[in-house]
Amino acid sequence: MQLVFLSGGSGKRLWPLSNNARSKQFLPLLEREDGTMESMIQRVVRQAEEVGLKAEITFATNAAQRDSIINQIGEHVGIVAEPERRDTFPAIALAASYLHFEKQCADDEVVVVMPSDPFTENGYFETIARMAKEVENNTAELVLMGITPTYPSEKYGYVVPNHQSPITNHQSFPVKRFQEKPTVEKAKELLKENAYWNGGVFAFRLGYIMNIVRKYMQSPSFSDTYARYGEFPKISFDYEVAEKAQSVAVVPFSGKWKDLGTWNTLTEELVHPTLGNVLLGDEMDNSHVINELEMPVFANGLKDMVVACSPDGIMVCRKDKSETIKKYVDGLTLRPMYEERRWGTYRVLSDVAYADGSRSLTKTITLRPGKNISYQVHHKRDEVWTVVDGKGHFVLDGVQKDVQRGDVLIIRKEQWHAIKAANDEPLTFIEVQTGCPLIEEDIDRTSWDWK
Amino acid sequence: MQLVFLSGGSGKRLWPLSNNARSKQFLPLLEREDGTMESMIQRVVRQAEEVGLKAEITFATNAAQRDSIINQIGEHVGIVAEPERRDTFPAIALAASYLHFEKQCADDEVVVVMPSDPFTENGYFETIARMAKEVENNTAELVLMGITPTYPSEKYGYVVPNHQSPITNHQSFPVKRFQEKPTVEKAKELLKENAYWNGGVFAFRLGYIMNIVRKYMQSPSFSDTYARYGEFPKISFDYEVAEKAQSVAVVPFSGKWKDLGTWNTLTEELVHPTLGNVLLGDEMDNSHVINELEMPVFANGLKDMVVACSPDGIMVCRKDKSETIKKYVDGLTLRPMYEERRWGTYRVLSDVAYADGSRSLTKTITLRPGKNISYQVHHKRDEVWTVVDGKGHFVLDGVQKDVQRGDVLIIRKEQWHAIKAANDEPLTFIEVQTGCPLIEEDIDRTSWDWK
Repeated sequence: MQLVFLSGGSGKRLWPLSNNARSKQFLPLLEREDGTMESMIQRVVRQAEEVGLKAEITFATNAAQRDSIINQIGEHVGIVAEPERRDTFPAIALAASYLHFEKQCADDEVVVVMPSDPFTENGYFETIARMAKEVENNTAELVLMGITPTYPSEKYGYVVPNHQSPITNHQSFPVKRFQEKPTVEKAKELLKENAYWNGGVFAFRLGYIMNIVRKYMQSPSFSDTYARYGEFPKISFDYEVAEKAQSVAVVPFSGKWKDLGTWNTLTEELVHPTLGNVLLGDEMDNSHVINELEMPVFANGLKDMVVACSPDGIMVCRKDKSETIKKYVDGLTLRPMYEERRWGTYRVLSDVAYADGSRSLTKTITLRPGKNISYQVHHKRDEVWTVVDGKGHFVLDGVQKDVQRGDVLIIRKEQWHAIKAANDEPLTFIEVQTGCPLIEEDIDRTSWDWK
Repeated sequence: MQLVFLSGGSGKRLWPLSNNARSKQFLPLLEREDGTMESMIQRVVRQAEEVGLKAEITFATNAAQRDSIINQIGEHVGIVAEPERRDTFPAIALAASYLHFEKQCADDEVVVVMPSDPFTENGYFETIARMAKEVENNTAELVLMGITPTYPSEKYGYVVPNHQSPITNHQSFPVKRFQEKPTVEKAKELLKENAYWNGGVFAFRLGYIMNIVRKYMQSPSFSDTYARYGEFPKISFDYEVAEKAQSVAVVPFSGKWKDLGTWNTLTEELVHPTLGNVLLGDEMDNSHVINELEMPVFANGLKDMVVACSPDGIMVCRKDKSETIKKYVDGLTLRPMYEERRWGTYRVLSDVAYADGSRSLTKTITLRPGKNISYQVHHKRDEVWTVVDGKGHFVLDGVQKDVQRGDVLIIRKEQWHAIKAANDEPLTFIEVQTGCPLIEEDIDRTSWDWK
């Protein structure tokens, strides 16, 4: 069985913790039973393993999220990054092509596609196992999960089953029809029809979806499909596949299922009212304080509030207003002040513009053990690196040397440079950039053959 | 006339903006009519000048505040910094010795002592002029200001006048007795006696107070008085002088007079609900957001709240709970993350401890034009300075050179060094310290003869 997690989005609804470089599913805010923290994607991968799904995992994502997935999940999962943002059908088509051409999965292999960010219980994954079984039994060509609604929501699409004709042991039902996000009035009627929410979880055989893919693109390889990705129509999987399918079955799931997409819903699931360096006064009522900064936060007299602090900014909001954040902070055109990359992390400490148009940017950069940044050159800026922790190797204009704490590495414009952490410990340095203009795009890259 | 401002305190009641290095009277939070901002001490000095007091100004303060006073007021005022914290009588005795020995003021010169942080109107300073006139007229040996109470407060001491015997035109009255901070019940009785609040403003002739000083210390010079400062009793001016005086008069003042000592009272006087990089949502009610950080703050759904952010930390508090801040944050033993010094300012960007006990500290440091730091050496740490703006001069082990943006200055343990900004522009550099232990006390200083 192939399990494909869809990981997209670049929302600011959980700003300042989420931004264009860090989507909500990567925020390490959820507590495991042992007290350690995990992100939404770490949680779903763990749950899939805990119920014994025995699935091989692939993430269908975009280039910006590739490094975060590797850092959080490891290198043993497949990653298919779409070259441009289109819609869910093209993303799943690309993932299917990857399974077909690169992993050489058979046409009758069962594939389950699901979101990477539902906050749910292990029964959800047991339901996925039942869906896969229905596909194996040829119950239908497409099997989807129906979430038992808890209220007449206008936020979800619905699936109307034919409960009069249960397929097997009342565990799955033929789908009578799909219903797009309805009005609340319409949703109430749907509930009377025993409709389910469409949770975006689909099971099918790989050959089934590849036949649909081939209607749009006759391709000899994954790399060809990737290169021609823009030829796929911008259409959702629901429209292109689910609503056109000849036989569709729905498997119900009635356990815990939530979208932790706003601070209001997210904080309901936090075990502790604070995270990070936080000091609370004696009068706190249904309020949460999340602090990713070094500096302390003191809060007192808060009721139904959430406070969140990250290098990107500070948010103080009444919980029931937290859905409004996105529309305000979308106007902030600031660069991300913290990013996780394949090689490690960086954080901007200071970013100052001077009277003459010049700027300086100070970062703290940490390379994971054995990781390096590419061999690179800048044309408009100098960089000064002071190693503050760890050991590693540094190249400047073709000359490699060992470096350690206290070393100062001065890189002038037009000098090629790279740095690598030792295999057994991380390397941290402070970078001071000066130049005009000071932009990330001022970079050329090549590779260095580390000695 | 000599006007002595008492500037002490190291309170955290306006944390995180105030800390042990920056008292509330230095916070630039008050708006002038022209829209620019000023601190409490800038405001009282401006007001004293606006009413034409024609007073020479001296600040009686402590060493930690000397640089802030010079930066905010200039070098034309006298500054007397007590060598250790005692009480108001010793502080005023030291200031009087300074006026007597150093400024060589005559014994009959009128001295007015007042706090540096009342939020008041110009009529307050007109009252001070009348108090000085009463001293000149020999109405009493000690004249103090009586603030007309607006409610039976237990926060202030009271002065009970003899209203039956007005001294001159009902503008001053003999003092019948003093009353320490009373209970609310007792305060209600005092109001029936037409008592005033004791606002801590005293006028007298220099010779009068010097006679009292000589009871404790027969001293030939200011430097001798300074060196023997610890011999003065720890006693307030009210106890030692006011309550023992033979003839005391009170001059009433009934205008605006407030102590902006908590976020609750301070924000009442702020013209705008925000200061700094702040984005507000559509639902804000009687709330203030003060942001001294580069990063943005977003707030929405706040009612009766104050948010304050500085390099020291972040505070979110309901206004009526803001008096509780001090008791909580007194427990935070963090170093100040931002300081104003004689030579300029510094801000800590990052302060990290590593697994082996070593640390790194990254600061941005700005020298004011023509200012320098002392010629100094460290025994346990290296420092790397990258000049990011301006021009100046740098000395390393006796060799002076010119420096400018982009220059990297590497200072190893035991190397003597100093830096000075050019006369016509500030100099900014990023400092990265590495060492073990990394403490401010690891420093020896001498002077350098700049070429």
